[in-house]
Amino acid sequence: WPRTRSLNAPSPIQQFGPCGRIMKNSAMVMTIQDPASQRLTWYKPPLTVLVIKKIRDDSVLSPFVQLVKWLITEKRMVVFVEHSVLDDPLLSNQPGFNMTRDKLMPFREGKDDLTDKIDFIVCLGGDGTLLYASSLFQQSVPPVMAFHLGSLGFLTPFEFVNFEEQMINVLEGNAALTLRSRLRCIILRKDEATGKPTKAPTSLLVLNEVVIDRGPSPYLSNIDLYLDGKHITSVQGDGLIVSTPTGSTAYAVAAGASMIHPSVPAIMVTPICPHSLSFRPIVVPAGVELKISVSPESRNTAWVSFDGRSRQELKHGDSLRVTTSIYPVPSICAQDQITDWFDSLAECLHWNVRKKQRHLD
Amino acid sequence: WPRTRSLNAPSPIQQFGPCGRIMKNSAMVMTIQDPASQRLTWYKPPLTVLVIKKIRDDSVLSPFVQLVKWLITEKRMVVFVEHSVLDDPLLSNQPGFNMTRDKLMPFREGKDDLTDKIDFIVCLGGDGTLLYASSLFQQSVPPVMAFHLGSLGFLTPFEFVNFEEQMINVLEGNAALTLRSRLRCIILRKDEATGKPTKAPTSLLVLNEVVIDRGPSPYLSNIDLYLDGKHITSVQGDGLIVSTPTGSTAYAVAAGASMIHPSVPAIMVTPICPHSLSFRPIVVPAGVELKISVSPESRNTAWVSFDGRSRQELKHGDSLRVTTSIYPVPSICAQDQITDWFDSLAECLHWNVRKKQRHLD
Amino acid sequence: WPRTRSLNAPSPIQQFGPCGRIMKNSAMVMTIQDPASQRLTWYKPPLTVLVIKKIRDDSVLSPFVQLVKWLITEKRMVVFVEHSVLDDPLLSNQPGFNMTRDKLMPFREGKDDLTDKIDFIVCLGGDGTLLYASSLFQQSVPPVMAFHLGSLGFLTPFEFVNFEEQMINVLEGNAALTLRSRLRCIILRKDEATGKPTKAPTSLLVLNEVVIDRGPSPYLSNIDLYLDGKHITSVQGDGLIVSTPTGSTAYAVAAGASMIHPSVPAIMVTPICPHSLSFRPIVVPAGVELKISVSPESRNTAWVSFDGRSRQELKHGDSLRVTTSIYPVPSICAQDQITDWFDSLAECLHWNVRKKQRHLD
Amino acid sequence: WPRTRSLNAPSPIQQFGPCGRIMKNSAMVMTIQDPASQRLTWYKPPLTVLVIKKIRDDSVLSPFVQLVKWLITEKRMVVFVEHSVLDDPLLSNQPGFNMTRDKLMPFREGKDDLTDKIDFIVCLGGDGTLLYASSLFQQSVPPVMAFHLGSLGFLTPFEFVNFEEQMINVLEGNAALTLRSRLRCIILRKDEATGKPTKAPTSLLVLNEVVIDRGPSPYLSNIDLYLDGKHITSVQGDGLIVSTPTGSTAYAVAAGASMIHPSVPAIMVTPICPHSLSFRPIVVPAGVELKISVSPESRNTAWVSFDGRSRQELKHGDSLRVTTSIYPVPSICAQDQITDWFDSLAECLHWNVRKKQRHLD
Repeated sequence: WPRTRSLNAPSPIQQFGPCGRIMKNSAMVMTIQDPASQRLTWYKPPLTVLVIKKIRDDSVLSPFVQLVKWLITEKRMVVFVEHSVLDDPLLSNQPGFNMTRDKLMPFREGKDDLTDKIDFIVCLGGDGTLLYASSLFQQSVPPVMAFHLGSLGFLTPFEFVNFEEQMINVLEGNAALTLRSRLRCIILRKDEATGKPTKAPTSLLVLNEVVIDRGPSPYLSNIDLYLDGKHITSVQGDGLIVSTPTGSTAYAVAAGASMIHPSVPAIMVTPICPHSLSFRPIVVPAGVELKISVSPESRNTAWVSFDGRSRQELKHGDSLRVTTSIYPVPSICAQDQITDWFDSLAECLHWNVRKKQRHLD
Repeated sequence: WPRTRSLNAPSPIQQFGPCGRIMKNSAMVMTIQDPASQRLTWYKPPLTVLVIKKIRDDSVLSPFVQLVKWLITEKRMVVFVEHSVLDDPLLSNQPGFNMTRDKLMPFREGKDDLTDKIDFIVCLGGDGTLLYASSLFQQSVPPVMAFHLGSLGFLTPFEFVNFEEQMINVLEGNAALTLRSRLRCIILRKDEATGKPTKAPTSLLVLNEVVIDRGPSPYLSNIDLYLDGKHITSVQGDGLIVSTPTGSTAYAVAAGASMIHPSVPAIMVTPICPHSLSFRPIVVPAGVELKISVSPESRNTAWVSFDGRSRQELKHGDSLRVTTSIYPVPSICAQDQITDWFDSLAECLHWNVRKKQRHLD
Repeated sequence: WPRTRSLNAPSPIQQFGPCGRIMKNSAMVMTIQDPASQRLTWYKPPLTVLVIKKIRDDSVLSPFVQLVKWLITEKRMVVFVEHSVLDDPLLSNQPGFNMTRDKLMPFREGKDDLTDKIDFIVCLGGDGTLLYASSLFQQSVPPVMAFHLGSLGFLTPFEFVNFEEQMINVLEGNAALTLRSRLRCIILRKDEATGKPTKAPTSLLVLNEVVIDRGPSPYLSNIDLYLDGKHITSVQGDGLIVSTPTGSTAYAVAAGASMIHPSVPAIMVTPICPHSLSFRPIVVPAGVELKISVSPESRNTAWVSFDGRSRQELKHGDSLRVTTSIYPVPSICAQDQITDWFDSLAECLHWNVRKKQRHLD
Repeated sequence: WPRTRSLNAPSPIQQFGPCGRIMKNSAMVMTIQDPASQRLTWYKPPLTVLVIKKIRDDSVLSPFVQLVKWLITEKRMVVFVEHSVLDDPLLSNQPGFNMTRDKLMPFREGKDDLTDKIDFIVCLGGDGTLLYASSLFQQSVPPVMAFHLGSLGFLTPFEFVNFEEQMINVLEGNAALTLRSRLRCIILRKDEATGKPTKAPTSLLVLNEVVIDRGPSPYLSNIDLYLDGKHITSVQGDGLIVSTPTGSTAYAVAAGASMIHPSVPAIMVTPICPHSLSFRPIVVPAGVELKISVSPESRNTAWVSFDGRSRQELKHGDSLRVTTSIYPVPSICAQDQITDWFDSLAECLHWNVRKKQRHLD
């Protein structure tokens, strides 16, 4: 069953760069994309599916077994799971699991390469499963169908009841799709010997946000923010959040940001507890390059984390570069791009939910 | 000198509609546009120029005369001005104005049609001159070069000193350009006799925002908000602002919105003093259609205004439709899209301007 | 039954004045009052009761009749009601009302003086009934027991079920009491002839807030704010709210203010949609005097309203003075000062109500 | 020179307690204190002065020497300084310092007891010097006169030029005084053996705030907040700030709080980046008792810090109790309570500082 490439992974058009090329005649043309036009279609039926389940949560075990069994038996698909899943004793106790166990294709994170092997991803659990799926695919990502167990998440619109029916709909194509942009983050480390920057191994894609904060230190160093090479402002406070529109409803909203629909091509920059009263969050076009570094005169260093993981120190002379990745996460909608988003705002953030009050007479 | 059409007016590509058409194969492709790629180029040298000056402000008279004289004498351009300008006695007293007076082409707002007659617009004064220029062109707008007199505005990046040099640069082409999207607002009135909606004459393009508020009433009626035909939420409070990214730094920022760079294709929805603590502003894709109406059970009506003008009542049964227009305002940058915007944030909003504090030891 | 004075109306200690008197030895002494120490006690059993009911709401009729009947028959109290109540035909249809009708003492707002005649007030309906009760007593106010019908209000903590039991508890004394401070607002009008200020008839006490806004005008004039005679700042925006702690959860919270417990002796100043990003709301001590006037260079005037009523124009040369009144509204608690307040925050504002989320693993 | 007690330290009136005592007759009386009535008077001329200077800052050396010399020579006062100051080699190089060196009274923090020895404190440097002075006096604090060097701080209103004149004014009495309340914070540790709480040595007074946050952990545990023994709410987010009115312009304002004048008797509770959109900051009366603990079901612990220092872990079963201390910091005003505060808001926070804009016509 090896396949040359995933059916639906994005074929990026390389129209992006940090510096200004002149696009002939582009100036006066404006293309407005209706988000409803983004839909999923399959050229060939998908054959391989990666199933990701929430770990350390018993309630997910039974749905996981049902789902995997159905995919193998009914849909004749090749199912990939994480290697550790096979060793889970709790799972072995689930009725019927041992039958399907041998048909599962195990993989190990960081060892086995999934690129071009997977046509379709199914997530079972919370928003964390989708963040994890995103981290597995550092280039193009197959379409993801995410089920929540319990209450709706920002990234998990499907409920598990009648999963067969919903999955058949999706596999037959023509579902609405939200292309969730990701940020490509590169840390350039200063070489101690030469004093010049050297490309570091740290290059990560984030789906929610990259956070620069004071880490365990009681004080934040001053942080300098550059846009397309220009110094924009300096940050004094607890830190800075650079987020995707998807991430605008995560940490950024807690820090005071407006909420951005994931289809808007933009990057959000939100300060965390800034000393300045006027430091309102800003939204810049997806096509810019951000650079963040510790101010030369600053006493302390800063700390960087990516979707809440891989926390590391940003020292004097190091810099963090952030651009929009050309590899979004294609996330399948339960209803459509608009309804799904507003449903998750109401459910997860109680957005504008209130009792109706009668006015005083 | 009649010309078939303006040199640089947008030739819109009609890829926009309120309902979801399926774009073949579009789902997995992501195009990220670098804002720096938007630049102005002239195919033929511009011949006709419309000069708009701030009214009731003496300080603008002398620059206006200098500018007009230079355009006519040095650049041999055909200069359009508003008819009322010719009758201004203060202007007649300006030295040298009477020489150029006869060469000016007067027009009357609402009577003379400027479509396809103007290659280039120059504004002299405050942000209001650009809002006025926008209102004159309800379809495609020629490139606008806007001078402030005094301090930098959001929409007026050029300073008047050395205006000749800066203008020559622009006329020779290759200046950075910000395409400022506008909102197309249509009020559908309920026909009293039939009870059915009838298309009303009110169809306006706004550059900043359309505001729905309680007008002179002490209480706002409940307002219903729909997106692509779906009921999203109801508004209780002082009102609602639907703004372009350009307008995010105008009324919306005062109501608590984040600030959006004008190149981001989005629509911002900001409540004014909402009763609900959780009613945070939201940013939706430029391609959606918003509908706003007075809730059927509401006691009062609401009032609508467009870029601060044309205030009118929105009665029960009426509705306001808002979509992104395919006709943006091409606004010429003094430096570039990024620098101009952050300069105006610092100058007009003191964004994150503060004295540096030494930390306590 | 005429009585010299109401039993429990505040006997103010006149320790307040706008200018700084030196209090010998006061500097180093700090008295911290536990809000739980504010409790209601009756010296003699209350004899006269004023019952205020929400108007134009049918659901309040039956509770009203039950309550009035019980007060007269069981408690032998003298019951005052508004004159218009007696004429309400809907009320006459209520079973048993005609029996008690003749024993009611009617009064007319603005004609009959209630001062020193009332020992106790009962409100039936929404927060508006308490605002109305407050407006009836421009000097000392008897203790108020306020029932909501439906859901808890900010000012109406009691539910009507078992009203007899709750009322007996209160009449027997020893209930917790929140002293809700009010603001004394005086408008000084400029005399057109002499140009000097003259004391105008407008002197009002507000329980929630006094609002200065642009009224029907599209633009707010500049507003100057003075504290104890010093110019503090100028307001550009939609207006200014000067509120009591009680009012901090009304209009002020919608404009972005923090919420202040009604027992804190303070005045809150909140701008409405200010042009300046750094114009955060402020809280000043209850003992200061505020002065608000239209800036001399301002083009427009402003409008003032008091607890949402009595809207009037504030012209150039006029000024509004605001101080804390020595006559608070003693509002009886259903449980205690702290529990009642947090219950109303949860119920009316959904304060920090959210589903618990499990963290991603 | 030993003295029985400091001249001006507060003699607290013990009217405070966490539980509700009934104050006879108190219910209807409202005392409104004019902040202008708080003034400093000396019964006997102050004899002993403690001078605190900013450390590791060369610019403070020369003013320090001038000040100390003048106090000893001209005013014949007994001057206390920290022991380490005498050993500072940089100070020895200052002209004229060696003459006064032998007359200085050294003390060691944590070793020498200053209680009842000091009549008057002078601070030289930034806000940190006043926080340090506050930490030295865990019971009553003598009046503090604080000079800034450079620009105005929140706590340092005096400028050093003409210090002699200003100091003579203060020593002659009759200066305005702001009584800055402090919070008494006690950590009760769970005894591992018995499981019952034991009073821990940690009892600290803070002038700005006590912060409960996630410390070096990437996730905050759930935090439970109690008021006067009642569970009020649970905090999910980055943490919680419990601050004095003085502290409302420090960390709390960065986290979104309104600003409270230091004379208002209140405690401010501000969440840091709360997950809930509706978790607005609240202000409660100074007389309540707050309790904060890690929720039993929470996975992680929390960390507590006091005015930015003494950071320590708060484990499951531990609790933090916070009440208003009866020992405020009497802080001498350069002008008066109102002017000083608004000057510091403008200088330190740029509060509502903006260029005036002309409205568009």
